[in-house]
Amino acid sequence: MDKKIILTDSEIPRQWYNLAADLPTPLQPPLGPDGKPVSPDMLAPVFPMNLIEQEVSQQRWIDIPEEVLELLYRWRPSPLHRAVHLEKALGTPARIYFKNESISPAGSHKPNTAVVQAWYNKQFGIKKLTTETGAGQWGSALAFACALIGLECKVFMVRISFEQKPMRKTMMQTWGATCIPSPSPETKAGRDVLDAHPDTPGSLGIAISEAVEAAVSDSTGETRYSLGSVLNHVMLHQTIIGLEAKKQLEKAGEKKVDVVIGCAGGGSNFAGLSFPFASDKINGADIEIIPVEPASCPTMTKGPFMYDHGDIAKMTPLLPMHSLGHSFIPAPIHAGGLRYHGMAPLVSAGIVEGLFTPMALQQIECYKAAMLFARTEGIIVAPETSHAIAATIRKAEQAKQEGKERVIIFNLSGHGLMDLYGYDLFLQHRLADHELHQDEVDAALAELKDLPKPSLAKTGKW
Amino acid sequence: MDKKIILTDSEIPRQWYNLAADLPTPLQPPLGPDGKPVSPDMLAPVFPMNLIEQEVSQQRWIDIPEEVLELLYRWRPSPLHRAVHLEKALGTPARIYFKNESISPAGSHKPNTAVVQAWYNKQFGIKKLTTETGAGQWGSALAFACALIGLECKVFMVRISFEQKPMRKTMMQTWGATCIPSPSPETKAGRDVLDAHPDTPGSLGIAISEAVEAAVSDSTGETRYSLGSVLNHVMLHQTIIGLEAKKQLEKAGEKKVDVVIGCAGGGSNFAGLSFPFASDKINGADIEIIPVEPASCPTMTKGPFMYDHGDIAKMTPLLPMHSLGHSFIPAPIHAGGLRYHGMAPLVSAGIVEGLFTPMALQQIECYKAAMLFARTEGIIVAPETSHAIAATIRKAEQAKQEGKERVIIFNLSGHGLMDLYGYDLFLQHRLADHELHQDEVDAALAELKDLPKPSLAKTGKW
Repeated sequence: MDKKIILTDSEIPRQWYNLAADLPTPLQPPLGPDGKPVSPDMLAPVFPMNLIEQEVSQQRWIDIPEEVLELLYRWRPSPLHRAVHLEKALGTPARIYFKNESISPAGSHKPNTAVVQAWYNKQFGIKKLTTETGAGQWGSALAFACALIGLECKVFMVRISFEQKPMRKTMMQTWGATCIPSPSPETKAGRDVLDAHPDTPGSLGIAISEAVEAAVSDSTGETRYSLGSVLNHVMLHQTIIGLEAKKQLEKAGEKKVDVVIGCAGGGSNFAGLSFPFASDKINGADIEIIPVEPASCPTMTKGPFMYDHGDIAKMTPLLPMHSLGHSFIPAPIHAGGLRYHGMAPLVSAGIVEGLFTPMALQQIECYKAAMLFARTEGIIVAPETSHAIAATIRKAEQAKQEGKERVIIFNLSGHGLMDLYGYDLFLQHRLADHELHQDEVDAALAELKDLPKPSLAKTGKW
Repeated sequence: MDKKIILTDSEIPRQWYNLAADLPTPLQPPLGPDGKPVSPDMLAPVFPMNLIEQEVSQQRWIDIPEEVLELLYRWRPSPLHRAVHLEKALGTPARIYFKNESISPAGSHKPNTAVVQAWYNKQFGIKKLTTETGAGQWGSALAFACALIGLECKVFMVRISFEQKPMRKTMMQTWGATCIPSPSPETKAGRDVLDAHPDTPGSLGIAISEAVEAAVSDSTGETRYSLGSVLNHVMLHQTIIGLEAKKQLEKAGEKKVDVVIGCAGGGSNFAGLSFPFASDKINGADIEIIPVEPASCPTMTKGPFMYDHGDIAKMTPLLPMHSLGHSFIPAPIHAGGLRYHGMAPLVSAGIVEGLFTPMALQQIECYKAAMLFARTEGIIVAPETSHAIAATIRKAEQAKQEGKERVIIFNLSGHGLMDLYGYDLFLQHRLADHELHQDEVDAALAELKDLPKPSLAKTGKW
């Protein structure tokens, strides 16, 4: 019965871990359009000050308020499973563990930060949150959070997804949120696009612009914007995953972890599992920490570490991150949550420092891995999560070849019950891999050539 | 933090509870077409003998094999939640608890019996299981179970659902099952229907006939049929829900439970939660136990206790149960799992004995209840489960009117993430209630008039 390790309420972590405090080189600041660092005050129209404080904090441990713990405790601590059936199918000597974040009511890790952000906004007197969503996982999570906290919620959903995935909209509406297709006539950003391209399918870049505009232009001052990944405070909130996992591995009798794996689009589920292990690595532990991305959107493996905007419309400050350029449009792979041109600054800095060693995989290998996982461990995972499983299988097979008893842990970031269409295509042999068009990356990166450059360099420690 | 009560692995129940051992009047036997009791041997071509033994067992406690516990432990014990936010919204003095069965990988309580049936079949040397499914919840659960155990699985899915809910088919295929629309050309039963009605939407009755035929006609003798509700051994396996819940309520400090509620289509999730409490009631405890059904398919509240077939094609033995007649076609409500003409014999006998007091509700009241639940407790439930919530709200409001501190527990049998279409219609105000056409019930019941009558009568104890 030691194949699932649970924690009781008294064992839930009571502090988040802030990797920024432990990075060998301090994090580079975000920059404004003038190339100067953005001060906390400048972010105040967009985010509440209590979250801005977390965003810029250098404190290693940050207390989780008791009321937030109560919220998280609705579905947390999440179980840690030993994937013995997958191990057996692979014939590997590796011991494989996974943290099951699919059991949240929204089906993914996203509520770990959504309820926290909603709570801090409410504390700050905010009445309404705006956000954008692509495939719908983040929008659903924030709608869920706002229902629990009692905030209004407006989600700008990329129009093509709004039309292709109507049930995601229904999910958000059931939780009381308003969900509208983007571009919309409700914002200037949206109207400008609609005027020029009435039939546009929309994009995450446009949706971000609309959500930010809707927040900052509310004259009551009671609306703020919420982001589901990329930013430091989002990574912070997700560290509860890795902090729980460390306690659970100890309970399972594991003295050492060799490999930590998570898929990475904006970086939040990867950061959530891995940052507490990165802390051990900084303190001397020998751990391989792997963020996994799609080969068709290879932000970490092919994108340089640059200052770039978070959105196509350049509404956000410049962030120091691995990027393919904010105008790069990734191929339409099914892992919609991994189709992002940039990467969280904290994850990006960790890559430059050598803490994290990214891997890029094609989607067919990932679906094959997900199929094997469904038929051995019984859980149908999100297309994003399938990347973590495929990387896990690679490392488990390597352990087999080398005859080594490695301990591997990956983050099962979400279930795939709202994303079965990709599985259907795979089962029908109608799924294809997408090659990267390097010329498109080069063109997108060329747009960044006059922007300031971050000065971070690898310390050579790892 | 006492709003969620969990059990550790050492606290998982190690025996199932068999209500048949404690019913004041022994259960009436199933009858063959000749009106004589069906012997265990006669069921052998359909089910493996180890499950037939459970079906006819009078033993009060039946050991759960260690390997089965390992299987169940993948997602069990399930959490018990105190619905404090729903209580607050209702302003009720009642304390409301719910058992969260939605966290299984298939999203419902169905795997509790699916993995057990698959395991016993495998032990008996069976290589392949057949079954039918309507909306897809049971077919998904059996596909999941067969993937874990290593059995082939073939699911006959009612054609209209097969076409309307293609993602359910994908779910089953991902777990390695074959899912084909019924009626199919693969069975005589299917071919006969297709010859007469090439455009038929299919029905559960036809699908059952096909699945049974596919099992018994396999000349290797290595195929059996599996049913997801109604039968005694299915109810038995589900009692793990209520056995866990009793331990959890004790942990929560509750000395007494006043009301136990579950929705009931074939009866399995209701039985799972309630039978262990029914045992207390038989032994003198004062508990109101409520199975909830749709007003448009009022098997328990308007169907007489009769001998009737489990399927329209009369392939199954006659079972002693509340029934609207096997030819009754319920209105197309969204709670597809509650659209069944009969009711499990054990549940039916409990109703006759006065242990259970059924309630019938219209779907709009149920969707309203589900909406309130989603916005307070955060979980979007299956349309079936919404019936249990609506009944819970009625009882909580009654407690408020009477100023009584009642303890209410209901079974959250599944999530609704695969069933959001009904929510969408509700949100658009396009959902209607369905009236019962009594003449249709009368016509279906008239067909039963020459069948034997069960002799069970209320003992008058409750």
